[in-house]
Amino acid sequence: MSFAATLLTLYPDMFPGPLGHSLAGRALERGDWSLDCVQIRDFATDKHRTVDDTPAGGGAGMVLKADILSGAIDHARAKQPDAPILAMTPRGKPITQARIRDLVAGPGVTLLCGRFEGFDERIFEARDIEEVSVGDIVLSGGEPAALMILDACIRLLPGVMGAATSGSEESFEEGLLEYPQYTRPVEWEGRTIPEVLRSGDHAKIAAWRKSRAQQDTRLRRPDLWERHSGVRDQPASGARHDN
Amino acid sequence: MSFAATLLTLYPDMFPGPLGHSLAGRALERGDWSLDCVQIRDFATDKHRTVDDTPAGGGAGMVLKADILSGAIDHARAKQPDAPILAMTPRGKPITQARIRDLVAGPGVTLLCGRFEGFDERIFEARDIEEVSVGDIVLSGGEPAALMILDACIRLLPGVMGAATSGSEESFEEGLLEYPQYTRPVEWEGRTIPEVLRSGDHAKIAAWRKSRAQQDTRLRRPDLWERHSGVRDQPASGARHDN
Repeated sequence: MSFAATLLTLYPDMFPGPLGHSLAGRALERGDWSLDCVQIRDFATDKHRTVDDTPAGGGAGMVLKADILSGAIDHARAKQPDAPILAMTPRGKPITQARIRDLVAGPGVTLLCGRFEGFDERIFEARDIEEVSVGDIVLSGGEPAALMILDACIRLLPGVMGAATSGSEESFEEGLLEYPQYTRPVEWEGRTIPEVLRSGDHAKIAAWRKSRAQQDTRLRRPDLWERHSGVRDQPASGARHDN
Repeated sequence: MSFAATLLTLYPDMFPGPLGHSLAGRALERGDWSLDCVQIRDFATDKHRTVDDTPAGGGAGMVLKADILSGAIDHARAKQPDAPILAMTPRGKPITQARIRDLVAGPGVTLLCGRFEGFDERIFEARDIEEVSVGDIVLSGGEPAALMILDACIRLLPGVMGAATSGSEESFEEGLLEYPQYTRPVEWEGRTIPEVLRSGDHAKIAAWRKSRAQQDTRLRRPDLWERHSGVRDQPASGARHDN
């Protein structure tokens, strides 16, 4: 059964975009995944096909209307009742590799892309929608974020990567960054590949890689490291940290 | 002067992709930004145009060769000496809205996209390259991440958004998530727009929005909230927290 991606968007022409090339593009041709773009504007109810309106309380920009969004969302849910609906929004929960793996284990995913100032908040109260964010930056719309999430899903579908990588030694899979990689030439601009990687001693290589993954995570991503190594040690006094 | 985006990629056909549409697409047509895709493979030196090789020390996948990457990087730097080079990698520093604003204030950006298992680490020791990550997920390549970073840049270029939004009340701009938005209809499925937003009292509205931005950041993104509100209070005992 093919992984069904549904996009709710005002710009269906943006898809498959980069996902029509390389690994994802070949997987789409083979039918490993399918793509259905739903034009949110088709659910507008007036002759101007209005999808947005000015923010209540004032301010710049336009807000996507709950009454129109609900039409598109209910349409997608009726077609794919078991696929979770993810809305791309900077107010959402940061997406994780673990969540990507969960999605890939299911029948598919529906991705709701906003534009302008965002969504009428009531849509999240009235429908079962996961608000997700990809990086703490602001986009012109959810479409580039949706493409990224789909790419992360598609590469994990059975058969897509083939033997290219096991997927299990990559960044985030163990809650750590991946260790650094090297390849030929052995010497380049006076810099050599670390000796241990050329030793042929598999136990030593594994130990070096584990140690570098830990060290790099601690230095580069103290936030990940803290989660990986569990809750912070409690201070000796037992003082609580309420934030 | 136009913002110059240079992509170093094995898949130049992925660009402009979604950035050829909507705001970014119109800005590209107007010349507010320019796009130059450099095919990394053009810098290969053998007849098979090889760009990658097996990882030193063993393991699945292929690693992009430093001697080939350096050719593409040096070419881009010679053309745009003042544009920073960002490599898309899960080992990188998470991109922030503040970094996006810095980039937009400059002449452009060069984005290095990897595929396979990643880059030979020596390229980062030998060249001035910023390793950046967008979300803790693993992609099939850096291209979707590069599209996202460019989208975030382009919308901030002068004239691109017009009066659509001030940009200053958005998520992350103050180190907080944005407050929730509402628009007509006032009542939808029995849910109403919060009273205060319909009051016309601008001071009250601003206070409500500030309070909701703080509350939502605290609940949804304790990591952002902690950074926003400064270093954690020291415990009364003065116990240190070294991680």
